[in-house]
Amino acid sequence: MGGDLGPPEIVAGALDARGDTLTPILFGDAGIETHGLELHETTGVIGMNEKPAEAVRAKPGSSLVASIRAVAEGAAQAVVSAGNTGAVLAAGLLELRRVPGVLRPAIAVPIPSRRGPSVLIDSGANADARPEHLVQFATMGAVFAEEILGIADPEVRLLSIGEEREKGNQLTLEAHELLLAADLNFGGNCEGRDLLEGAADVVVTDGFTGNVTLKLLEGTIVGLIDAFREEITATTAGKLGGLLIRPAARRLRHRLDPDTYGGAYLLGLRGLAVIAHGNSSSKAIANAIRLAARGVEHDVAGRLAARLPQRAEAV
Amino acid sequence: MGGDLGPPEIVAGALDARGDTLTPILFGDAGIETHGLELHETTGVIGMNEKPAEAVRAKPGSSLVASIRAVAEGAAQAVVSAGNTGAVLAAGLLELRRVPGVLRPAIAVPIPSRRGPSVLIDSGANADARPEHLVQFATMGAVFAEEILGIADPEVRLLSIGEEREKGNQLTLEAHELLLAADLNFGGNCEGRDLLEGAADVVVTDGFTGNVTLKLLEGTIVGLIDAFREEITATTAGKLGGLLIRPAARRLRHRLDPDTYGGAYLLGLRGLAVIAHGNSSSKAIANAIRLAARGVEHDVAGRLAARLPQRAEAV
Repeated sequence: MGGDLGPPEIVAGALDARGDTLTPILFGDAGIETHGLELHETTGVIGMNEKPAEAVRAKPGSSLVASIRAVAEGAAQAVVSAGNTGAVLAAGLLELRRVPGVLRPAIAVPIPSRRGPSVLIDSGANADARPEHLVQFATMGAVFAEEILGIADPEVRLLSIGEEREKGNQLTLEAHELLLAADLNFGGNCEGRDLLEGAADVVVTDGFTGNVTLKLLEGTIVGLIDAFREEITATTAGKLGGLLIRPAARRLRHRLDPDTYGGAYLLGLRGLAVIAHGNSSSKAIANAIRLAARGVEHDVAGRLAARLPQRAEAV
Repeated sequence: MGGDLGPPEIVAGALDARGDTLTPILFGDAGIETHGLELHETTGVIGMNEKPAEAVRAKPGSSLVASIRAVAEGAAQAVVSAGNTGAVLAAGLLELRRVPGVLRPAIAVPIPSRRGPSVLIDSGANADARPEHLVQFATMGAVFAEEILGIADPEVRLLSIGEEREKGNQLTLEAHELLLAADLNFGGNCEGRDLLEGAADVVVTDGFTGNVTLKLLEGTIVGLIDAFREEITATTAGKLGGLLIRPAARRLRHRLDPDTYGGAYLLGLRGLAVIAHGNSSSKAIANAIRLAARGVEHDVAGRLAARLPQRAEAV
């Protein structure tokens, strides 16, 4: 019920993702046309403007809370939601609970950089964070990069406003010192300009900066491709050229399109949750469901739980 | 002396910018080849890693401090620096002083959005800011948009992680309430994805988020154009198409290239300062000098000083 485009878009994505080894289960209002997919009827919807903790307490039967509870109870192996991110986090904390030792769950998004995927963490779970939280985000990001992306000894860098140790705000200045002391392959600060180039295997930041960053990156990629199309179609030679480069444009778009990923893992919980954008298309929803399925195959939640406590103690 | 590429790049930019009504004066070490431009010999250089306030106090004869003092003393009408941004701010506060009523100077950068220029403020002067600072940044940005960009009743929006009033971190949640109460055309929050589309005439944020944002935007534009070139030249048809779309690509690059702007105004001081990137090319330096000259022609500093106090009291 959480997507901005309404249940039919979510259902279309789920139908698209369905496969021999992948069975989507829908959670939503009675009467939704599911085209044969299983529907758990729920009552109540948590809106985008509601205060997360209050809404989760007040609406335990909502599609958002019920779908997360289904993972806690073993009725599903992972949950995908395009609803209120804060509410997904709050319900995750309540129903799935944190991995022991984790202070705050965080959202990890693989950025399609030129060097390969670069994990941006936290991409929006915690709008305000303390320096010690950033060290844990870094640790979770490193475990994710190792276990799921197969990157040996992943390099972690801290998103800041200059590469020098002295550059940053109070949060990053303190986090930098803690990261130097932590059991991580810490490569120092990186800047916004380095992100698409592949600044590091893991780029750590607070959830506010991470969310602004992620949305800016997505908006700029889409906006730039649109602007380029406008310029090209302004002349006849350009139009012809545009036809010839169309396959290249399609490859680039596929490589960089946010919908290609569709969602992001919420790490640090004892169960797998994938967060999709509120405005997700059916294509994005389908990819988010596939991402969740890959997470189940690779046992993301289990591997993090197995490795995080000893990591967290080493901090 | 402040640019990463060394004095010859700065001198080349100054030579390029020189014109009938524009006379660059250089501040730097004796012996620099100036190709006929006036050189004020200075001693000492403030490095990128030095602590701003200490460095400015310890090196009053450095090129950075001496060039700013020249504006305070009327020997120059504006200063352009590619040096340590924090030190430019510190020297500006010391030598030029603040406009009465201004709590913190801020960096205003016109973002080349599709709707026209959008002023991003603060783009990096204050890594940590309080909610009341953001209201002043908004006010300075609005005056800048009105007076310099000629935008009537400019709309101000707050960069956050959701359009809803309830979305944000502690800083933006409090700033949002203050902005609603201020004498501004405040349109609420905007998100990173809206920036290149033209989210608003003025986008207000703290200097940390603004600097990460600006560098990300620049890096993504350059990186995306490079990635597109790689994809195109991978096939013969693509190469031919690439030749045909080259003029379109050049127009787009010119429109979006960070070097097209070259620098940003540091607003809130009783004198005009333009901050250029440390890694500025001679082209970027020339454009930064031209930007400073336009600021002098339009009396940016004077108009802000004339309008800010009454604005600031209205807050």
